[in-house]
Amino acid sequence: MGIENPAALRKLERADLRSVADELRAELIRVGSEVGGHFAGSLGTVELTVALHYLLDTPHDRVVWDVGHQGYGHKALTGRRAGLMKIKKADGPSGFLRREESEYDAFGAGHAGTSVSAALGMAEAARRSRSGARVVAVIGDGAATSGMSFEGLNHAGHLGTPLCVVFNDNGMSIAPNVGGLNRTKRTREYFESLGLRYLGPVDGHDLDALLPALEQMLAQSGPTVLHVRTKKGAGYAPAEADPFKWHATGPFERSSGAARAAASAGAPSWTAAFADALIRVAERDPRVVAITAAMPDGTGLDRFARRFPERTYDVGIAEQHAVTFAAGLAADGFRPVCAIYSTFLQRAFDQVVHDVALQKLPVTFALDRAGLVGADGPTHHGALDLAYLRIIPNLVVAAPRDENDLEGLLAAAVGSDLPFALRFPRGSATGVPILSEPKALAIGRGELLRRGGDVALLGIGRTVQVAQKTADLLAHRGVRATVIDARFAKPLDAALICSAAAHTGHVVTIEDHASAGGFGSAVLELLARELPRTAVRIHGLPDRFTDHGDVNEQYRAAGIDPESVAAETLVWLSEVRRAAPRPRARNGGEREEFPHAS
Amino acid sequence: MGIENPAALRKLERADLRSVADELRAELIRVGSEVGGHFAGSLGTVELTVALHYLLDTPHDRVVWDVGHQGYGHKALTGRRAGLMKIKKADGPSGFLRREESEYDAFGAGHAGTSVSAALGMAEAARRSRSGARVVAVIGDGAATSGMSFEGLNHAGHLGTPLCVVFNDNGMSIAPNVGGLNRTKRTREYFESLGLRYLGPVDGHDLDALLPALEQMLAQSGPTVLHVRTKKGAGYAPAEADPFKWHATGPFERSSGAARAAASAGAPSWTAAFADALIRVAERDPRVVAITAAMPDGTGLDRFARRFPERTYDVGIAEQHAVTFAAGLAADGFRPVCAIYSTFLQRAFDQVVHDVALQKLPVTFALDRAGLVGADGPTHHGALDLAYLRIIPNLVVAAPRDENDLEGLLAAAVGSDLPFALRFPRGSATGVPILSEPKALAIGRGELLRRGGDVALLGIGRTVQVAQKTADLLAHRGVRATVIDARFAKPLDAALICSAAAHTGHVVTIEDHASAGGFGSAVLELLARELPRTAVRIHGLPDRFTDHGDVNEQYRAAGIDPESVAAETLVWLSEVRRAAPRPRARNGGEREEFPHAS
Repeated sequence: MGIENPAALRKLERADLRSVADELRAELIRVGSEVGGHFAGSLGTVELTVALHYLLDTPHDRVVWDVGHQGYGHKALTGRRAGLMKIKKADGPSGFLRREESEYDAFGAGHAGTSVSAALGMAEAARRSRSGARVVAVIGDGAATSGMSFEGLNHAGHLGTPLCVVFNDNGMSIAPNVGGLNRTKRTREYFESLGLRYLGPVDGHDLDALLPALEQMLAQSGPTVLHVRTKKGAGYAPAEADPFKWHATGPFERSSGAARAAASAGAPSWTAAFADALIRVAERDPRVVAITAAMPDGTGLDRFARRFPERTYDVGIAEQHAVTFAAGLAADGFRPVCAIYSTFLQRAFDQVVHDVALQKLPVTFALDRAGLVGADGPTHHGALDLAYLRIIPNLVVAAPRDENDLEGLLAAAVGSDLPFALRFPRGSATGVPILSEPKALAIGRGELLRRGGDVALLGIGRTVQVAQKTADLLAHRGVRATVIDARFAKPLDAALICSAAAHTGHVVTIEDHASAGGFGSAVLELLARELPRTAVRIHGLPDRFTDHGDVNEQYRAAGIDPESVAAETLVWLSEVRRAAPRPRARNGGEREEFPHAS
Repeated sequence: MGIENPAALRKLERADLRSVADELRAELIRVGSEVGGHFAGSLGTVELTVALHYLLDTPHDRVVWDVGHQGYGHKALTGRRAGLMKIKKADGPSGFLRREESEYDAFGAGHAGTSVSAALGMAEAARRSRSGARVVAVIGDGAATSGMSFEGLNHAGHLGTPLCVVFNDNGMSIAPNVGGLNRTKRTREYFESLGLRYLGPVDGHDLDALLPALEQMLAQSGPTVLHVRTKKGAGYAPAEADPFKWHATGPFERSSGAARAAASAGAPSWTAAFADALIRVAERDPRVVAITAAMPDGTGLDRFARRFPERTYDVGIAEQHAVTFAAGLAADGFRPVCAIYSTFLQRAFDQVVHDVALQKLPVTFALDRAGLVGADGPTHHGALDLAYLRIIPNLVVAAPRDENDLEGLLAAAVGSDLPFALRFPRGSATGVPILSEPKALAIGRGELLRRGGDVALLGIGRTVQVAQKTADLLAHRGVRATVIDARFAKPLDAALICSAAAHTGHVVTIEDHASAGGFGSAVLELLARELPRTAVRIHGLPDRFTDHGDVNEQYRAAGIDPESVAAETLVWLSEVRRAAPRPRARNGGEREEFPHAS
């Protein structure tokens, strides 16, 4: 029987902790082999997790785990052992840490580099409130390549607050870690220059060394870093041998490490389609270089790098730098393509505005994981990108409905002199045959896919297919729909959309994105200007964060599936038609009372 | 006669450069005394500017000045000497560097910390294209507290590209610089730990030392930093004595340094009103702490800090950290108020989403410089905030129309358990008498200010006054307008707005913000849902970056002034009324041809 909570752990003798750690590691391997997940990072922090909960009075004392990829052991020790079998499922725990999931999750995260800042805030809160709480941030050497971790450390060194930072050094980001600090290994100088006391290094798997080192760290009166060396995947030979591949895994055979599920045939992923398209574009245009922020595998740039190793940059978890570095390359003649997940590009919003768009530099942003991503949950959904990008002057914003359009858009982006963002979802693409010559796609031109006079259905990217299937369903009910692939959220194909609106009088927009501020909102703005009084209905995500779960169920729950859109469109059409156009005679007097009159 | 261009400079002997520098400094002081501006930073870099243009083959070689506050001497030496007298005026040069202004401005900036990333991109471009161009980034110790500068340095140390970084160390941000690195002064260790070669320190005002040091830097084959010590305001005694005050200045008497214009009486600035309101709120609520990212004076937190020194944090130019540090404080019981300019909060967009809003933590964001700012130009306009903030779930977004509402909103924010953003403009507030007890303002409630049945004018923040004056103008033309202070961009006061829309049938929104995605767009979304076919017209900024210039002229040019709104509303009302409501009979067939049919 494993330990279920820190109180039980703290009743043990130190000599017992080794077996606790061994049991926990075996449990993580067993569960991982059954359900997959982010286990390599968690295997590397088993001893650290046991030791921290043993020495600290959690949850009164605060442990802030950066990202949370290494938090599975922490979950097991804090009452969520059974839940691990359902991790990342709708009815199971999050793959990351979340404040609403457990009082032991002091601060949630899914993006890297936030732990020092959050923990410093908590350390200051403890100092101000005299709560006596000790605060520990655990940050990996990968996450420490993010600028905000530097900002937090530099402020900690300034304040002198007794913040503890465990620097979990396993040489890895998801991929092998990069950066000058990783190259020089002058870790002590780095932290000391910022005003932190440096302790270590210590072997993070040797409890006899780790426990006293942590105690020494906790006893300091100022900001202190303990350098802990760990092995990602520690204790499971296949993961130790290839921690990059094992960062996240599906179910596997415990003895061999072989994946249980056969690789699915079917359509290629959007990621693979992007990588292949980018390779072809780069073969034709020597100005193209590719940039990833520590996600070569997730973005497909590993594939690109095999073809063009000299034209690929991994800048570390440093999206801000990635974007402005790209801007510098673009300013002097190159055509950089920044491949960054939709949600991670939020980190570089200002750089997209200030360094790229304001200077009208031809940087292309390829946003994978646009829309809902399912299992990774609210920190990873790419549900805001159309909204935060389409407001930026000079920037083109597009989404392909299939693999050929992806290549066509990429070619258009690189061939233009404009900043250009294109987004595509997680998971399988459509599987269309790849054209040997990609379609040349004109900027700001959508495509009319079907004609019908009752209603115009406007999709973009992934939702073009939803619009098409909705039109089929509506046809069965005698409603004839026009279907448009808008393709561009900016600039909109105003002529096409206005023509469809004039033709039908009813416009339905569908997007795998927040309902507020996105594609539908752009269509509303256009029609308010050009065809006032057109009825428009937006289908998008509701104004709340979407949890982790099955992505198809999530879209159904949000009503962004053909059945929901068709059913709601029928109701809406009858409602709008019933409501008579406003009589002009009423527009002349003050006859009604307002609520809230002041 | 001063040097007008680098070619002329390079014809001189080294021994002549001292007098060039002296002449340039005198010129900067003379011009500064006439027109004001950001002269203290530029006085500190006179010798550096002369030396760089002397040694380098600009513009083929690339110099990237961080921010550009220190770039006036560079402007003078690169053909813009006469223009300095009109700096920041609509017909004069920008206060910062801009690619479109001069080929010598290799990369524009107005936000801090971008130079290393941009220059590294250019250095890689030079390496790839074998252009032979040398690339130098000049970054201050203030700008180096930004996380992205760390990201760029860390990547430079990884790549090994021969990038030159001049670390211009004057101990100042705008205010005295902060951070652990500033405290330890272990500059060499910092840069070396990231893999850069460190040279220096050298006296940046001693050309005999500076020139050979720069030559040594330029001769390196890998990334190299030269540590240059300068004095902000060097050569002008009043500025040397108080460089904080002299960071930016109005016209002054050269002999004494006394300001020429008398301090204006009139209404207090929004900044001062915010500071006073925050002090009163903090006096009532001990949980309130205030955070600035290196802008104590610009945000008014210097005033707050005089009252509550122990409750004020200056975190350096580190907006990302500021926000997540606030989230940590909020998670453990405090009510932090982050005072950050609208445009600079873009740097922390992801942190607002991921660390604050997702966890529903009660952090208040006070965004000064919302809307257009005039002289500082496109990098400083706060024209996107309503759009990028209102799409974030859980976040409240508001703007006060006067000083009392500012305090009421601040009190509502701190008293709520919600993340809350409030924005207000640069410049003078309204001058209303301050209530001893601030109005309690309910979240999501606007205010009906005037009734009229022909059209509803909806303003928010600064544009409520525009709406009121527009209503006066319309009244003279026989058009009766309802006027609403929406106050909240999120959540909208749906009942009030819908009631006004139902009453008038015509809604005009006015905002000092981009037309796309902002307040007007939120109103469109609401009415499309609740009152389809309502005619709505959005007045906002056009979809392009606005240059520097006079702010009132800029608003007039954008049509966001009462005369323009009134005139356009009259035309629009007659157009919309003339256009008959769409006949229902047309909604049934496929009778029209579409353009772009595929």
